[in-house]
Amino acid sequence: MRASRFHISTYKDSPADAETVSHRLMVRAGLIRKLGSGIYILMPMGWRVVRKVEAIVREEMDRAGGIELSMPVIQPAQLWQQTGRFDKMGAELLRIRDRHGNDFVVQPTSEEVVTDIARQEVRSYKQLPKTFYQIQTKFRDERRPRFGVMRAREFLMKDAYSFDRDAAGAQASYATMAQAYRRIFDRFGLRYRAVAADSGAIGGDLSEEFQVIAATGEDAVVYCPDSTYAANLEKAEALPPQGPRPAPTLPLTKVATPGYTTCEQVAEFLGVPLERTVKTVVLATESKDAGEQGSVRLWIVLLRGDHEMNEVKVRHIEGLSAFRLASAGEIEATLGCPPGSLGPVLPARCPGVRTLADREVAVLADWVCGANEEGFHYTGVQWGRDVPEPDLVADLRNVVDGDPSPDGQGTLCIERGIEVGHVFYLGTKYSQAMGATFLDVDGKPRYMEMGCYGIGITRIPAAAIEQNHDERGIIWPDALAPFTVVLCPVQADRSPEVAAAAEALYAALLAQGIDVILDDRNERPGVMFADWELIGVPHRVTVGARTLQQGKVEYQHRRDAGTTLVAQEEIIAFLQSRLQRRA
Amino acid sequence: MRASRFHISTYKDSPADAETVSHRLMVRAGLIRKLGSGIYILMPMGWRVVRKVEAIVREEMDRAGGIELSMPVIQPAQLWQQTGRFDKMGAELLRIRDRHGNDFVVQPTSEEVVTDIARQEVRSYKQLPKTFYQIQTKFRDERRPRFGVMRAREFLMKDAYSFDRDAAGAQASYATMAQAYRRIFDRFGLRYRAVAADSGAIGGDLSEEFQVIAATGEDAVVYCPDSTYAANLEKAEALPPQGPRPAPTLPLTKVATPGYTTCEQVAEFLGVPLERTVKTVVLATESKDAGEQGSVRLWIVLLRGDHEMNEVKVRHIEGLSAFRLASAGEIEATLGCPPGSLGPVLPARCPGVRTLADREVAVLADWVCGANEEGFHYTGVQWGRDVPEPDLVADLRNVVDGDPSPDGQGTLCIERGIEVGHVFYLGTKYSQAMGATFLDVDGKPRYMEMGCYGIGITRIPAAAIEQNHDERGIIWPDALAPFTVVLCPVQADRSPEVAAAAEALYAALLAQGIDVILDDRNERPGVMFADWELIGVPHRVTVGARTLQQGKVEYQHRRDAGTTLVAQEEIIAFLQSRLQRRA
Repeated sequence: MRASRFHISTYKDSPADAETVSHRLMVRAGLIRKLGSGIYILMPMGWRVVRKVEAIVREEMDRAGGIELSMPVIQPAQLWQQTGRFDKMGAELLRIRDRHGNDFVVQPTSEEVVTDIARQEVRSYKQLPKTFYQIQTKFRDERRPRFGVMRAREFLMKDAYSFDRDAAGAQASYATMAQAYRRIFDRFGLRYRAVAADSGAIGGDLSEEFQVIAATGEDAVVYCPDSTYAANLEKAEALPPQGPRPAPTLPLTKVATPGYTTCEQVAEFLGVPLERTVKTVVLATESKDAGEQGSVRLWIVLLRGDHEMNEVKVRHIEGLSAFRLASAGEIEATLGCPPGSLGPVLPARCPGVRTLADREVAVLADWVCGANEEGFHYTGVQWGRDVPEPDLVADLRNVVDGDPSPDGQGTLCIERGIEVGHVFYLGTKYSQAMGATFLDVDGKPRYMEMGCYGIGITRIPAAAIEQNHDERGIIWPDALAPFTVVLCPVQADRSPEVAAAAEALYAALLAQGIDVILDDRNERPGVMFADWELIGVPHRVTVGARTLQQGKVEYQHRRDAGTTLVAQEEIIAFLQSRLQRRA
Repeated sequence: MRASRFHISTYKDSPADAETVSHRLMVRAGLIRKLGSGIYILMPMGWRVVRKVEAIVREEMDRAGGIELSMPVIQPAQLWQQTGRFDKMGAELLRIRDRHGNDFVVQPTSEEVVTDIARQEVRSYKQLPKTFYQIQTKFRDERRPRFGVMRAREFLMKDAYSFDRDAAGAQASYATMAQAYRRIFDRFGLRYRAVAADSGAIGGDLSEEFQVIAATGEDAVVYCPDSTYAANLEKAEALPPQGPRPAPTLPLTKVATPGYTTCEQVAEFLGVPLERTVKTVVLATESKDAGEQGSVRLWIVLLRGDHEMNEVKVRHIEGLSAFRLASAGEIEATLGCPPGSLGPVLPARCPGVRTLADREVAVLADWVCGANEEGFHYTGVQWGRDVPEPDLVADLRNVVDGDPSPDGQGTLCIERGIEVGHVFYLGTKYSQAMGATFLDVDGKPRYMEMGCYGIGITRIPAAAIEQNHDERGIIWPDALAPFTVVLCPVQADRSPEVAAAAEALYAALLAQGIDVILDDRNERPGVMFADWELIGVPHRVTVGARTLQQGKVEYQHRRDAGTTLVAQEEIIAFLQSRLQRRA
């Protein structure tokens, strides 16, 4: 490609609404352009990156036996009503009414349509297994779109769906896809982790997220450096503490803690370790008892002051799948105290209120908690004596750095990640809802076992940038770069030798199948270099009159501090040795 | 590809709503599946065809200097309001309101967005010319979607837009695109014509349609076998007749024509040539005179009985750009006679009614027309004597087979076509409406000159099938076939030799880069052959035990009546010689 025949559009200033480095750099480098809230034009430079992402995903999906098709963007509402998602998805699902008054949705994913295909096309076990996939425009009407294409409303997604005879088959299809995802992310050249994720109501361990590691990531990724264990924060188990509860040594004492409300403040004020303070969270669930409409049940959750509640783990506890935080009014009405100074030392067990203690809280002695009175806390609190033993002890918290790894192989570390892929075993959730059966070998109809597998195609470039950038701009891995090599002739308009050498090298690189752009814009070197450093092309070759006199050109990788002089006749071999593996 | 790992889904019965051969065959061959009215799933077999279309279009657009990007499917209504198309496009434009109450449209094309890009990104003449293109999902909410993907509501379109400094530049960009289109349609391997089309209000000759020739086409394509002249029916000029109006010989006579109303009936009844009968069409326009609201003006249009009125030609006449057919009430009120027996022999020139005669009518003598009285016609009608000379003589009719070619090189022929592409010079229509200017070399702002260029990507397979099919199914040209070669082992499950030979040949064909599918489904030969003839793979190689004993396999092109025996060791060279040029 010649720059003069391409569209290069770089900006000094960042857009006012850009909160993240990738959003800023994608706009400044001319990769994307905002058309509306959460709606972006993929500009020529950005589209080249997306096309490279697509090509790698497609190759590996095909290699793994995926069958590509294309489902409509605009889908009839009826199918979505069959699974209940038309209502359940709420405002995020963009709805349309056509000229005849029929309802449609803009696809956020395609479980309904693909299950409709399967239930009509798959009649016999002989046709299974099948994995269909597409790379298509999706839309989610996010309440607050942000971070550019990272959380856009319109985006490109690769979504795949597997159909199998039974759970064992579905697990094999899942494993094939999970393996394909590893190849895909390896080929992208990004640092990533495949982490176990919560599989919700389905159960089992067949849910993994693919997280691109970046300090700015929204998600916490838990891993063990000494083993293969990796999970997202929602999923990572906090092992039970070693050893029994110590014997109590202190009496229950009510102490004044004027103005101190958080555990951190109270621990410091009282001079006790934060790990001996306990915080009280009150949850509410609506119980639909017969006759009584929407009666509310409260739950007390106790966590150590240095720990955070893990919502997903709490939801897995029977009766809590649909919990919410209790309101101040509900707390006062039931527990008889203001929500600011809550603690579990209550005058009498409140009827119907259940107390759940995190495993670490259950083994505490001589602990500190709120005294249910503003400005006061208890110290020397003891289980059994001051607080009845909890109704349930469970893992209710997020793991923290240094926790033992669940596989017993060391301690856990936490880093930040950006979720860009997800593989998920669906079971028969959709096939049951939509009646997608096949005739099995015994002649009986059975529901197909499904899995779904997504990659956020337009999210990949943003995640790649969050991981790979510096103060001058983007640094692309070879596989995702809009161009692999940029060829910069210095003042070619004043030097026929430079122009001729650059043209010859350009032709030679093209002949080698190298994705090169020749910057023939006749810009000043400073402008030219700043542009390409912002755009982040990984390999740059500069052709200048001075070095040319010695028969040399300058090479610089985007990460190099300086340039390397390379003989003209060696530059192609030199470049090829530096290009990362291209599959 | 192995058939067992692909999704093959053929049907004996045609869908009830399929009116065209391509719709029937695409559903029966499993290329498409209906999801809703005018909304189709591109099934794996169909998607392969679409991907081949896309690849050819993309290569040729890139070769012609097009710069690919991707504009959003969901676009803010504001831009569409700037050009007035938000209202003008009516119900065909699918409108959405998002969760925040903002209005959006689903793109039917992208002139507004691309002009918005240009007005923000193009500042200087140095950045021009530029041609942007995309291959993206479009939606038009057709009142009556039909013919499968031929007239679907959701479809894929390649839309390109050129931006130039001036009209000369725009014409050069247009020529480049028109040339690229010829290469694209050549590579498709379809019989097509690029025909001059009407360019509407812009004027000039820079509008061409690309029509795939098929007996079932909706459009009439006019061409001259002896020259390069080709136009669509709307555009093709009917040359003025040779020689003057003959001298009249007959008196005006009112004759009874009981029950005969059409020119054909009257000509036969009276024994006069159809070419001497004249039909009268009454048009109406709303004239918005000051003070008077919506006064209606009538126009009489006279055409020979064997000719049809050309609406586009009529609209080009001053005052008639927004004509409609006059109502029976308007005709009776103004002309004083029922619309069924109209003719131009009126008692007195009606005030404000203008008479337009087609060139062929203006040179008639002794003609026949309605007598403005039910059951009667006039014969021997003469211009000047019985009917005042017309207010305007113009080309108002469709050309017919045998008319002289406008380039003077022979006579015209008419065949049917399916419009699959259109190149169009837009001028400054959009750049003016949206304020898309650039600073020219003299430092002054100028409006960009634009062109737009579309190809109906998902329409191409349907058009290809309309042109290439027989009673057994589709016959793909090599370039568009879902698979170029199908390899059919006969009863491989009973013959290890057949299985081994088929596998070896499959591997050898793949190694040659030939797009082959191995039918390893173990279907009976009859089922297998019927499937592939329906699907239309052009080249079939059959491996059977009987011929294998002689060291031979059978080859049959989809158009061949029978098979050809080819030695096993020669089949690859044989196939390669038969594959059409692949670019």
